[in-house]
Amino acid sequence: MKKSQNSENFSPKLPLSPSPQTCIEIEEKVRYSETDQMGVAHNKNYFEWFEIGRTEFCRQKKIPYKSIEERGFYLVVVESFCRYKKALRYDDTFFIQVSLQEITSKKVVFSYQILSENKNQIMAKGYTTHIVTNAKSVVCKFPDDIINKLTS
Amino acid sequence: MKKSQNSENFSPKLPLSPSPQTCIEIEEKVRYSETDQMGVAHNKNYFEWFEIGRTEFCRQKKIPYKSIEERGFYLVVVESFCRYKKALRYDDTFFIQVSLQEITSKKVVFSYQILSENKNQIMAKGYTTHIVTNAKSVVCKFPDDIINKLTS
Amino acid sequence: MKKSQNSENFSPKLPLSPSPQTCIEIEEKVRYSETDQMGVAHNKNYFEWFEIGRTEFCRQKKIPYKSIEERGFYLVVVESFCRYKKALRYDDTFFIQVSLQEITSKKVVFSYQILSENKNQIMAKGYTTHIVTNAKSVVCKFPDDIINKLTS
Amino acid sequence: MKKSQNSENFSPKLPLSPSPQTCIEIEEKVRYSETDQMGVAHNKNYFEWFEIGRTEFCRQKKIPYKSIEERGFYLVVVESFCRYKKALRYDDTFFIQVSLQEITSKKVVFSYQILSENKNQIMAKGYTTHIVTNAKSVVCKFPDDIINKLTS
Repeated sequence: MKKSQNSENFSPKLPLSPSPQTCIEIEEKVRYSETDQMGVAHNKNYFEWFEIGRTEFCRQKKIPYKSIEERGFYLVVVESFCRYKKALRYDDTFFIQVSLQEITSKKVVFSYQILSENKNQIMAKGYTTHIVTNAKSVVCKFPDDIINKLTS
Repeated sequence: MKKSQNSENFSPKLPLSPSPQTCIEIEEKVRYSETDQMGVAHNKNYFEWFEIGRTEFCRQKKIPYKSIEERGFYLVVVESFCRYKKALRYDDTFFIQVSLQEITSKKVVFSYQILSENKNQIMAKGYTTHIVTNAKSVVCKFPDDIINKLTS
Repeated sequence: MKKSQNSENFSPKLPLSPSPQTCIEIEEKVRYSETDQMGVAHNKNYFEWFEIGRTEFCRQKKIPYKSIEERGFYLVVVESFCRYKKALRYDDTFFIQVSLQEITSKKVVFSYQILSENKNQIMAKGYTTHIVTNAKSVVCKFPDDIINKLTS
Repeated sequence: MKKSQNSENFSPKLPLSPSPQTCIEIEEKVRYSETDQMGVAHNKNYFEWFEIGRTEFCRQKKIPYKSIEERGFYLVVVESFCRYKKALRYDDTFFIQVSLQEITSKKVVFSYQILSENKNQIMAKGYTTHIVTNAKSVVCKFPDDIINKLTS
């Protein structure tokens, strides 16, 4: 078996390094229920942690994500990626760093780093790409004031 | 804000098209608890579904993943990617298709498609990359018989 | 430290034995992501499995839960209980048995048994109590036709 | 359909009021992924929150649960109960209060309250009952020093 050609509709956006100037950080601990029988945090939880980071990013930018949805806009995930470098274990403290990588009126890309308790090690990196929709799942545009706040 | 250069240690493996000849399929339904307040299946669940697909892939290749771990080998996820194309809702039937994209004694790549109930629509695509470790998380090599079974 | 008196607002409904005549059964397997570092299915998943059972119960009674919500009625969980008797492990097959224990226009109680693959062992038992609300979370009453279908 | 008699092997331990003198408190927020399509935190998450509370309880008693497992003792959940009083929504702040309700060398009962952000409202109450096992899932006894720390 060898690698086939990439299909044209499946070439992912290359993830980018976080821009330090807009980086938001939040501390968490690995929950027992987040471990699996390998004794480490299960891979799906990182996407939940990325989301906690997004929530905190929006809050610190004075535009809580809850208020974005209340205004009828939804940031729908269309792509998610994570590279796992070092395992996290039950009760480990870690830091989620979130940056806004790219933003237009129709699309937002966040990038993430999961850092060890002492912040010396990158445990994981990833990104999520979002489109903007309304409550009926129709693609729409972010108003300028939301973009301005997120990029402030 | 514009896109920065990709950092060298963060260039993901490009996902590949599934090789149809090795494709395994399994049917599932969206659980209520898998929905979120947008009314659709939450993005993290796709990685759980990919994993169900891997389990089924190994079983159908006559080398159940449980037996792989019992022999002291672990397929640790080092990268995961999903592109979401169309939302799935509560109680929707869907199909997980899994292919072995690449395999060496040290690394395995699976690719996935999530199909709609009528199989006319690709709801999501993704891949996961795994390294082989022993029970102490030390990188090791798959014995030939496991590789042979997975590629049979 | 000794047992204190039960507070008056904290006396749970005693769980009841399932009524065999209305028992619905569904087969599942333990997902890898449902295990924890003890190597067994984590306790919270049983409530997700109970819910899969409820979904199947309603479907087999020709009143899919999705259609109940579409008509503007919600079965909100107000109590849940599980007694765990024997652990389930990754890839174990098990059966969820669901019975309607009690139903009025305002309240529904389901009871559950989780059985081993050979159905010789009860792995867990539990129940959930639900009230009926509308989309605005206001308590309301189930129409007779829904009750009739669920008790048919 | 009417209520049947309780089966003898299914009479749950009556949950008890927390003993305020040993009450430990921890603050959390509802994660987006913890909501379901009703727009509220899904019932299974409360058991995950209870567990976060237990972890914090043990830590504050100077006997981190991680260290208990490292010594070869496991607190296996044999019963869990939750009564949901008022829904929690995305990004709501809440408090988990945990008390040790009962402890012997073979069995531990924790009780929990989930409080609203202003602590004026009890959002949920519950308990979990645990037995002590060794790494091979054989029931065993807690050594006195662990009991003494947990009850200190």
